[in-house]
Amino acid sequence: MLTLPALRAHPAVQLSAAHDLRDEALVRFESQFGATVHRTYEALLADSGVDAVYIATPHELHAAQAIAALEAGKHVLVEKPMATSVGDCAAMARAAEKAGKVLMVGPSHAFDEPVRVAAELVATGRFGNVRLVNAFNYTDFMYRPRRPEELDSRRGGGVVYSQAAHQIDVVRRLVRQPVESVRAVAANWDASRPSEGAYSALMTFASGAAATLTYSGYAHYDSDELLGWISELGRPKDPARYGEARKALKQLSQQDEIDAKLARTFGSASAGDPAGAPHHEHFGFVLVSCERADLKLLPASIEVFGDERRETIPVAPPTLPRANVIDDFAASILGARPPVHDGWWGLETMACCAALLESSRIATDVKPQTIIQESKGNTIQ
Amino acid sequence: MLTLPALRAHPAVQLSAAHDLRDEALVRFESQFGATVHRTYEALLADSGVDAVYIATPHELHAAQAIAALEAGKHVLVEKPMATSVGDCAAMARAAEKAGKVLMVGPSHAFDEPVRVAAELVATGRFGNVRLVNAFNYTDFMYRPRRPEELDSRRGGGVVYSQAAHQIDVVRRLVRQPVESVRAVAANWDASRPSEGAYSALMTFASGAAATLTYSGYAHYDSDELLGWISELGRPKDPARYGEARKALKQLSQQDEIDAKLARTFGSASAGDPAGAPHHEHFGFVLVSCERADLKLLPASIEVFGDERRETIPVAPPTLPRANVIDDFAASILGARPPVHDGWWGLETMACCAALLESSRIATDVKPQTIIQESKGNTIQ
Repeated sequence: MLTLPALRAHPAVQLSAAHDLRDEALVRFESQFGATVHRTYEALLADSGVDAVYIATPHELHAAQAIAALEAGKHVLVEKPMATSVGDCAAMARAAEKAGKVLMVGPSHAFDEPVRVAAELVATGRFGNVRLVNAFNYTDFMYRPRRPEELDSRRGGGVVYSQAAHQIDVVRRLVRQPVESVRAVAANWDASRPSEGAYSALMTFASGAAATLTYSGYAHYDSDELLGWISELGRPKDPARYGEARKALKQLSQQDEIDAKLARTFGSASAGDPAGAPHHEHFGFVLVSCERADLKLLPASIEVFGDERRETIPVAPPTLPRANVIDDFAASILGARPPVHDGWWGLETMACCAALLESSRIATDVKPQTIIQESKGNTIQ
Repeated sequence: MLTLPALRAHPAVQLSAAHDLRDEALVRFESQFGATVHRTYEALLADSGVDAVYIATPHELHAAQAIAALEAGKHVLVEKPMATSVGDCAAMARAAEKAGKVLMVGPSHAFDEPVRVAAELVATGRFGNVRLVNAFNYTDFMYRPRRPEELDSRRGGGVVYSQAAHQIDVVRRLVRQPVESVRAVAANWDASRPSEGAYSALMTFASGAAATLTYSGYAHYDSDELLGWISELGRPKDPARYGEARKALKQLSQQDEIDAKLARTFGSASAGDPAGAPHHEHFGFVLVSCERADLKLLPASIEVFGDERRETIPVAPPTLPRANVIDDFAASILGARPPVHDGWWGLETMACCAALLESSRIATDVKPQTIIQESKGNTIQ
């Protein structure tokens, strides 16, 4: 629902076919776009009218579906988390190389325009090296309606694979250095929603830079107050509407909860209007400290605090949500530029997520590269 | 200068004697308080009119001076950092026990009234256990006038011993659990001010709680914007006065810089009015996440974000800066309550500072308890 407007609007994209298990979604897709619908995924992949596949399925299906699509000669845009194991990510990245097709992981908040602009500013080198990044986000993630697998860590649930993946992507895009180590504590502190709902991590980079990443999906405090009360999806938020997710959840049975989650997917009668948000999306507070300036990322600007003055660098308002993702995907396919968030990128972020969880378990540093090495040769079969 | 008003005002305190190496300070003290002044520290300790000594000397002198005072039968209030090595701290704590006298480490921001009130709220248990603390502070510490030893890590300089000591104290007071491990990166990124000027640390506690502590003394960004533009010392701050510390420093020679620092000490012609600040002191952004609430510490309130509502718990305005420190010291001496920040407390904070630096050096977790164990038996002789 959130990516659809950008897909529809992009001149290089034609929505030619779709597959879903839900009949209502297929019926609606067919009538709305006059496009082919397929009752099986295999049929979609056999459709010669399809050049590229956007995979927006539950996490645990990503690897097999992406590899099958690449092997069928399709380019692939797969939602994060790229997969539920590092071995799967490696297999996906290799499959893309073998097929000579684009594999891109997104949407992710690393595509947010303020992140892109800040990363570009940092990359000019005029502020010196990045030394420290402070990123945190306090949300009610754990209390929004969830499918059961979203609360099951073994199936890619909890906040690490779904939320840390964003934060790590953002930080990596800003630092632009290989991640050396991750030390983290991931916490599971509500028995009624049993999965890792919060974490705090210290990441180090090859350049000596460090980043601290904190996320609480159990939060009562809302860090959007530090972002001008703009929500993660770029919409104005009313601070007076306090604690609504918890209140609403209390009223729901488990089936109601699954229904509430599904109601936000394409083709559902109650799915809201996906029209553009007035502000850019964001992933909480992000402050990048370079040697000669600190950069604070906001939904409509980058605040640059320099040696002599502070400067507000405005970021043009969004045209459509996630337009950057589709732009990058199309540009990669058309050969205009390589994707920042390719399979190897997604693999490293995934390895950082795995390192985060493993570090919390064994209470010491874990190197994502070690996890990648150990996963080599594993395949999803 | 900052503690003097609270010392003067406390009914249980009489300023009876002083020692300083600077004649101007002694002359002024004598005339202002009609008190005895001593040209040597030994003479002060031999003064039978002195029950307790407040040590506000350079860090490297703390240990020997505190131990001598305790051995002379005086109670001791020593500024943080307690000393410049963990072995010294242990020797001080043992000396206090042997002498049966109070050894207290302060002032520190853990005494700030909002910290005390928040710690008390947390200790009631009504919010469940503390799971996560997020503390950060972005200041121009490295660009304020400094004595040479303040920029020399071997002499207790840099931000770890002087600033992390505050932040660790604050976090420890809120969590109230033994610190299990510290993983940190301390950075030294301005060759013109060569000492650790920033750090980011992940601390874990025996209860499983975690805290992330970030400090940049190189900062261009000022985190006081998140505290209503109230300065660390509780005074209103004008955000328009941007980058003043760096600008002023550029004009100073090294001798000018030392003079500028000394000008803020007692007895100097230009020392400003130490009259009370309108707000409580603070040490930056502090958010404590308990199982059923997040608590945000502000200079005039604790914001409690609970399951069902948010609540502002006002903190009564300060009477005098650092009154809590002198209250606690006097109450400890008079036997009303044991000091929270006694020698063993200070030792653990110091061990955390040492662990922070060591963790950064060896790039893995360091346990403060190991550092304390290894320092056992060391004495300052």
